[in-house]
Amino acid sequence: MRTVALDAMGGDKAPEATVMGAAEAVLTKPDLMVKLVGDQAVLSLLLARNGVRGHKRIVIVHAPNRIEDDTKVDLSIRLRTDASLIKAIDITRNGEADAIVSLGNTAVTAAAATLMLGRIPGMTGRPAIATILPRSRKRRTILLDSGAMVDCKPEQLRQFALLGWAYALTTGIVEPRIGLLSVGEEPTKGNAAVQEAHKLLVGTRGFIGNVQGHDIMNGEADVVVCDGFTGNAILKEAEGFFPYLKSVAKANWLDALLAFLLFRRIGKVLDYRVYGGCPLLGVQKVCIIGHGKSDHVAAKNAIFAADRAVENDLVGNTSRLFSE
Amino acid sequence: MRTVALDAMGGDKAPEATVMGAAEAVLTKPDLMVKLVGDQAVLSLLLARNGVRGHKRIVIVHAPNRIEDDTKVDLSIRLRTDASLIKAIDITRNGEADAIVSLGNTAVTAAAATLMLGRIPGMTGRPAIATILPRSRKRRTILLDSGAMVDCKPEQLRQFALLGWAYALTTGIVEPRIGLLSVGEEPTKGNAAVQEAHKLLVGTRGFIGNVQGHDIMNGEADVVVCDGFTGNAILKEAEGFFPYLKSVAKANWLDALLAFLLFRRIGKVLDYRVYGGCPLLGVQKVCIIGHGKSDHVAAKNAIFAADRAVENDLVGNTSRLFSE
Repeated sequence: MRTVALDAMGGDKAPEATVMGAAEAVLTKPDLMVKLVGDQAVLSLLLARNGVRGHKRIVIVHAPNRIEDDTKVDLSIRLRTDASLIKAIDITRNGEADAIVSLGNTAVTAAAATLMLGRIPGMTGRPAIATILPRSRKRRTILLDSGAMVDCKPEQLRQFALLGWAYALTTGIVEPRIGLLSVGEEPTKGNAAVQEAHKLLVGTRGFIGNVQGHDIMNGEADVVVCDGFTGNAILKEAEGFFPYLKSVAKANWLDALLAFLLFRRIGKVLDYRVYGGCPLLGVQKVCIIGHGKSDHVAAKNAIFAADRAVENDLVGNTSRLFSE
Repeated sequence: MRTVALDAMGGDKAPEATVMGAAEAVLTKPDLMVKLVGDQAVLSLLLARNGVRGHKRIVIVHAPNRIEDDTKVDLSIRLRTDASLIKAIDITRNGEADAIVSLGNTAVTAAAATLMLGRIPGMTGRPAIATILPRSRKRRTILLDSGAMVDCKPEQLRQFALLGWAYALTTGIVEPRIGLLSVGEEPTKGNAAVQEAHKLLVGTRGFIGNVQGHDIMNGEADVVVCDGFTGNAILKEAEGFFPYLKSVAKANWLDALLAFLLFRRIGKVLDYRVYGGCPLLGVQKVCIIGHGKSDHVAAKNAIFAADRAVENDLVGNTSRLFSE
């Protein structure tokens, strides 16, 4: 039995989406327990509405408050023990849960989880946020960092490679291939940090050398490593691509129709909800941060992502890589 | 009368595409002269085939050799005066032409042009390569740097903003809006160089603050400034997007058909050939570097881009910005 602590009050559609997602998750997986952290009265009502009140694998942990998105993240955040996010992280830290899932603000969640769970020994930078990109109906590329560390030293890029490798394994990728994002294939291409990181990475298991922007989605690598500034710019550019194509197509009715039909169909393949959330890698427990817009399907899949990471011993594998 | 020196031997489809492009250019524009730099015999034959041998606004400048793509760019490159690229830059430098256009290797052309033409006073980094991105049927976003300078100091990012602003004017954008690429809108977002550059840019004409990855194509800014590492990654990612969508669509015949039809139609809007080439900004003469795959249409448009930049006094305007 694995236990996931869910910040039931985090996310735009919480607590309805979180409770419904949790209910579906426990009904689907018989060896999974979810601890819903949030307002007892509200959650209890919603559990009843979803027909799972009294279910022995869904438990409410009372935490009546919530962390606002614009909360300043500092040490004092830990003292807000009545906030759902903090309580959920806390019960994960003390072993009452194996993993924490939140659909709340990414920066706040990442910062609180880092402060409270601590980094795995050997990590020198901040934990990285990885994004899972669907490159086909079946295959994914894991990109990290997505924006947690905007200024990276070469050693931090090397550590991202280890974090990404360990995470890729838990998603079912056998022998993950790690690429370092650069401006050319040759080891001498790239900015100063990337050129140095390349040297550090030579000989690392799975390292295939430099990859470029167009390789992110073509399957050249399973894990693409870059600093958080570049990663963030790339991910946001990719997010803007469908709206851009639609706006270009809009000028002509036939183009608009073709675009509508195509994106409606392809959209299912590329649906972020399938991945459920982004792992925060490098902390001492499994932590999955979902999209703020997550509905119950995304919430359920975020819980499954956490469950899979625990089952495949993400933290243990990562720690071993860092102690080698 | 404006004169463009064309490296007639540069590019995958040269000299056929370059001569044909030049012929179309002079037949279209009555106040334009093209100096075709390359092998006299070959070019003469091709001029005849295009029906413009003896045309008084198309002149051959003999340079029998060509620079190979893998040429090491150092000071000795200037000594290869019989290579078409070097000769074309040389006659631009000494005033026999107002601008140089090459469809040859970007890095080699940029380096040779920088060495031979010199930077405008006040430029402290390398000249930037700007890329023109079509964000709709009528509007463009200018992104710089595209990869010339992968490690940028804040002052260099500030200079990119000035270069982009001056270039945007020559493309017909009135009061260009300049955005600094970052990971959030607030001035405090970004890596160290970007945060510092933001401070330097406050008060600069046209500066609208930070923009993000999704803003590149949504019209938030006319000029997007970033370091060459990020710019290169972003442009290559964008290049990979159509192939990616096609590969996703391929798995299903209806998706594949929709994608084929849509991209065939939209492709015309997004055709790189319309823009002809990327300007090298910050050198003392107009220099346009075209795509290596350019055909005669792209070659013609690269010549027109150079002509427009000369007509609108790109170098004069840029120099004035830097001396303010």
